[in-house]
Amino acid sequence: MLIVQKFGGTSVGDLERIQNVANRVSETRKAGNDVVVVVSAMSGETNKLVAYAEHFSATPERGEVDMLLSSGERVTAALLAIALNEMGHAAVSMSGRRAGIVTDNLHTKARIEEIDPSAMHKAIKEGKIIVVAGFQGVSLDGNVTTLGRGGSDLSAVAIAGAIGADLCEIYTDVSGIYTTDPRIEPKAKKLDRISYDEMLELASLGAKVLQNRSVELAKKLNVNLVTRTSFSNEEGTLITKEENIMEKPLVSGIALDKNQARVSLFAVKDRTGIASEIFNKLAQSSVNIDMIIQNVAHDGSANIDFTVPVSDLTDAKAVVDGFIQSGDIKGASYDEKICKVSIVGVGMKSHTGVAAKAFTTMATENINITMISTSEIKVSMVIAEKYAELAVRSLHDAYELDK
Amino acid sequence: MLIVQKFGGTSVGDLERIQNVANRVSETRKAGNDVVVVVSAMSGETNKLVAYAEHFSATPERGEVDMLLSSGERVTAALLAIALNEMGHAAVSMSGRRAGIVTDNLHTKARIEEIDPSAMHKAIKEGKIIVVAGFQGVSLDGNVTTLGRGGSDLSAVAIAGAIGADLCEIYTDVSGIYTTDPRIEPKAKKLDRISYDEMLELASLGAKVLQNRSVELAKKLNVNLVTRTSFSNEEGTLITKEENIMEKPLVSGIALDKNQARVSLFAVKDRTGIASEIFNKLAQSSVNIDMIIQNVAHDGSANIDFTVPVSDLTDAKAVVDGFIQSGDIKGASYDEKICKVSIVGVGMKSHTGVAAKAFTTMATENINITMISTSEIKVSMVIAEKYAELAVRSLHDAYELDK
Repeated sequence: MLIVQKFGGTSVGDLERIQNVANRVSETRKAGNDVVVVVSAMSGETNKLVAYAEHFSATPERGEVDMLLSSGERVTAALLAIALNEMGHAAVSMSGRRAGIVTDNLHTKARIEEIDPSAMHKAIKEGKIIVVAGFQGVSLDGNVTTLGRGGSDLSAVAIAGAIGADLCEIYTDVSGIYTTDPRIEPKAKKLDRISYDEMLELASLGAKVLQNRSVELAKKLNVNLVTRTSFSNEEGTLITKEENIMEKPLVSGIALDKNQARVSLFAVKDRTGIASEIFNKLAQSSVNIDMIIQNVAHDGSANIDFTVPVSDLTDAKAVVDGFIQSGDIKGASYDEKICKVSIVGVGMKSHTGVAAKAFTTMATENINITMISTSEIKVSMVIAEKYAELAVRSLHDAYELDK
Repeated sequence: MLIVQKFGGTSVGDLERIQNVANRVSETRKAGNDVVVVVSAMSGETNKLVAYAEHFSATPERGEVDMLLSSGERVTAALLAIALNEMGHAAVSMSGRRAGIVTDNLHTKARIEEIDPSAMHKAIKEGKIIVVAGFQGVSLDGNVTTLGRGGSDLSAVAIAGAIGADLCEIYTDVSGIYTTDPRIEPKAKKLDRISYDEMLELASLGAKVLQNRSVELAKKLNVNLVTRTSFSNEEGTLITKEENIMEKPLVSGIALDKNQARVSLFAVKDRTGIASEIFNKLAQSSVNIDMIIQNVAHDGSANIDFTVPVSDLTDAKAVVDGFIQSGDIKGASYDEKICKVSIVGVGMKSHTGVAAKAFTTMATENINITMISTSEIKVSMVIAEKYAELAVRSLHDAYELDK
């Protein structure tokens, strides 16, 4: 097999851990696989460099920040290659540039435009283990760029796609994706497999493991993604296309998002296009809208409720205040003490009654549902924040996710 | 003027010092000059990375060492560019690759093959201060290389040559080149100007400031080199071509080399080519020969004396033992308690009596001279090591170098 293995900052946090990573890569190699390793900077290193930059400027030039930060991954890549060579493997490190990773020129948050895999193919053909410095690429005009938060994961997924790897393993300090947050429900079970779409909907469960843009890229490039821990040999969770999942569970997991606030607009004027105007203005202020509910009153005016991330609430209020002043809205209220509980599963597509069971479960626990939204593979409910953990545990039980 | 300024590891040893360097570059810029800065890694950084590599392997692969070490200069270059931008200058950092520095592929001790100055010319034309990561380049096959000890100085000199800079200033913690080592002769004076050839002969005086290969490159590229300190505004020493030095001093400086040993071969057989055989064998064992004296005895056999660096003495002994066993030499003796004192000055070319004065001075002090060698601009004498300081001070006085 051709396997890409990505090790994050904590997995390469010190020299001992880099040796552990070398041992694991060595085992994978000895089992007869071709291996491309993608590494992050040693944990703490990037923060140290950012602090250095901020010593000189509150707004350091982004191109220089990229020059600065990209050095951290190069160090780890070279050290791991040295360790692997010492163990008798032929290993070679590559910067993002050497690995052929071409990005746009949006410094500090560049997007991968294309990968020229020829240098990697050549090295693999020569029997070498490749160690790529993650998180970085080179712009078309030849400058070093970095990919922003979660960038090394993106490097790994994009490389796996470009070289046609059979597997892309993302190693972190978490052993995989669970049916729900084990800190809330200790009976949560690790999933063996999950589809890309389910993973995207369960973002909050995977937040500490994988960013959505890595999953989206894996889906686009059809890369089989595995999240597992570098601290044991425990098997992880395979994130793959739906067709690869034989037994489609009705519900795969329960996600909880406490980072939402509810905005309620009263007596929105009854004129054509008003809703569109409000949401366009919110979009212009970069406010992310999640769920929306509209109730039309007898007089033709409407109440509109929607949820936004707590961090966007101040911006949302400013927009809403504008409409209140212009008289388009009579008033508004805001509630940060809410949360969103979501039930996700590809099996819902072909089964009925999944949502009904969720509502029944909430009713049994006397939890009031204030908003509902559904998609093909997800049912989301907004409830009072104080019921968050109770709701998750009840739903986990109701769908027998511990079985 | 177009000025290259190079700052070594101690000059950029911490964030405060990097800010000091930014201030100095800023002043140079404000005085109306175009500036290209070349920086080393922050002091301690390279040693740290070497220690990391050695944690994994006693013989780390040289290409990986280059990948590892080249990161240090990139960090300094980016930080200095950030500091300069914050001060209102347009500054841009460049890796060795971006600066167009192409080397052979002898990793960890690469030689600069050529410099493509187009990226630097473009940036200068745009009014930018360029900050180049020193010590590094890129091989023709696209891998990062480093230039070995003193590599950042070489980067600076080569860049100054390639872009036709008026001056190449090398900033260290030493204020310039002195008539002799001030720790031996407190009356030693700093030289305003000195020719390339004198500097090369005075290597021991400049050892802590400049390596000979940088001076040789400066001579070849006709680069005006200045060594000065980054810790004050004191003027340094200009190293330039002889034609630029109006008043040619008879003697510019007195150099002392304690790192020599004397090898004496007795009764070397009288047969054609024997001396050539001995010195060829020594060369094959990488023994550096400095001075040679041969005395032919009445029976036709000869005594041959020569000096080698102390570090080559073991290798030299092994070669000599071979000739003793074959009967070509009767015996040999070795003396590490010697030193070499040299008087250097371009003025010697056109003046007589310089060597005679040296011999008289030694005689006055009752110092026995055991070997002498002379070149156009240098007189070297081997004496007992215990007289080293006395000889230096006497000669410094005799040639009135404190005046």
